[in-house]
Amino acid sequence: MISRIALIGAGRVASQLGMALLSAGVTIEQVYSRTADKARLLAGQLRSEAVEELAAIRPGADLYVLAVSDGAISPVSAALSKHLPASCRVAHVSGATALPALGSHFTHAGVLYPLQTFSAERMVDWSEVPFCIEANHSGLLHDLRMLAQKISTHVYQIDATQRATLHVAAVFANNFSNYLFDIAQEIAQAKNLPFDLLRPLILETARKVQEKLPGEAQTGPAVRNDQETIERHLLYLQQHHPQYVPLYQMLTEGIEKPRIM
Amino acid sequence: MISRIALIGAGRVASQLGMALLSAGVTIEQVYSRTADKARLLAGQLRSEAVEELAAIRPGADLYVLAVSDGAISPVSAALSKHLPASCRVAHVSGATALPALGSHFTHAGVLYPLQTFSAERMVDWSEVPFCIEANHSGLLHDLRMLAQKISTHVYQIDATQRATLHVAAVFANNFSNYLFDIAQEIAQAKNLPFDLLRPLILETARKVQEKLPGEAQTGPAVRNDQETIERHLLYLQQHHPQYVPLYQMLTEGIEKPRIM
Repeated sequence: MISRIALIGAGRVASQLGMALLSAGVTIEQVYSRTADKARLLAGQLRSEAVEELAAIRPGADLYVLAVSDGAISPVSAALSKHLPASCRVAHVSGATALPALGSHFTHAGVLYPLQTFSAERMVDWSEVPFCIEANHSGLLHDLRMLAQKISTHVYQIDATQRATLHVAAVFANNFSNYLFDIAQEIAQAKNLPFDLLRPLILETARKVQEKLPGEAQTGPAVRNDQETIERHLLYLQQHHPQYVPLYQMLTEGIEKPRIM
Repeated sequence: MISRIALIGAGRVASQLGMALLSAGVTIEQVYSRTADKARLLAGQLRSEAVEELAAIRPGADLYVLAVSDGAISPVSAALSKHLPASCRVAHVSGATALPALGSHFTHAGVLYPLQTFSAERMVDWSEVPFCIEANHSGLLHDLRMLAQKISTHVYQIDATQRATLHVAAVFANNFSNYLFDIAQEIAQAKNLPFDLLRPLILETARKVQEKLPGEAQTGPAVRNDQETIERHLLYLQQHHPQYVPLYQMLTEGIEKPRIM
């Protein structure tokens, strides 16, 4: 069972995950950040001890959660292994990092990847966050599952290859769609039209695919092969935002093309 | 004041708008569809009279709402003008069609464009739908505003140029983002990963931009210039979904590029 955690990192994921774990009855014994202020701030929120040096992380926690940037997982794990016994159980929270980044330094290594986008200002609804878990040891896998289930009802055992797949899919679903919202905002803004005009549309677009598959929800000129509207849109973009013409064309052709599933 | 309406069309927008108008106390006197079954079905729901021939549309309604496909607005309007006095007030609900499509046949023509995406199965929350109104006559404009305000708290007077702009922006915000959700689903599906894993992410992506602007909400490897992750994603796509490599590259370059606002 995992009831005492040390949290390595104090960024967006670390702070929101820390709050969720605390609410679920888990004790956050220590919070590390190389930025002293961030460690202190989050430790205060988590009724925990702030730590500014990895050397000050104590052995004895049930789990060491590395919630640091992808590139820092391996070096921080290596540095941590100089101060902690190799038998300590560690987990990272990254969708993009394979297990050996930890497993080469600790015998019990796992992944606790919350598939969600985190902002500094918004607390996510953890009960609906899918947790992707993985471990190199069945006991740790079991305990990670129990831990994740304290926070969310959606816990999936996902191997490294599947997690890599999900990370690519998430870039399309989140990063790239947000960029399209940004382009829409820019197009509206250029004519002094408030983004509020588009916000309900964006929300409904996301709500629709909560029930059906996106392929079934597709609407617009491309899917109904409305060449007149497409031509008018391209003319508009050519005149006002020529940099988006190739993107409009590529996306339109993608929607028009019947896909082999 | 508009309290008696004839509804020309029985598709997704017609039926949802009709229900919203009925709930707001408006009488739907007649419902026309060239498909008799659709006219009858919707007329039943709207406590209205089903009409299968434009010639059976009676004069005397306060407004004739043309909720037909973009391409049908002008011909249906022309056909309608053979049976109704030119002084009848007409409005279409299209984001992509200019006013003269009606105005060349009727002296009082307007637009009542709900900027939302409509599905057959989902009733939208009308109170949050932005209505874009326009008219060639100030009395009609006033009455369209009163009518829209019975349904929604967000009513905007938008001219034809602005509406054309919004229509392009809406394609990015809705059609194209849904296509990205579709690609994400396809990528996950190829590894037997359920779309449920991505649904909360998509919903949160849309929720985030309800409060902030998309430019402030952008996350992911492109915006933090994480070339290692980008290269790994491109390699993955090259191996499994090569058709999406150019799109991934174009969207990534777009996010990386600082924009002049």
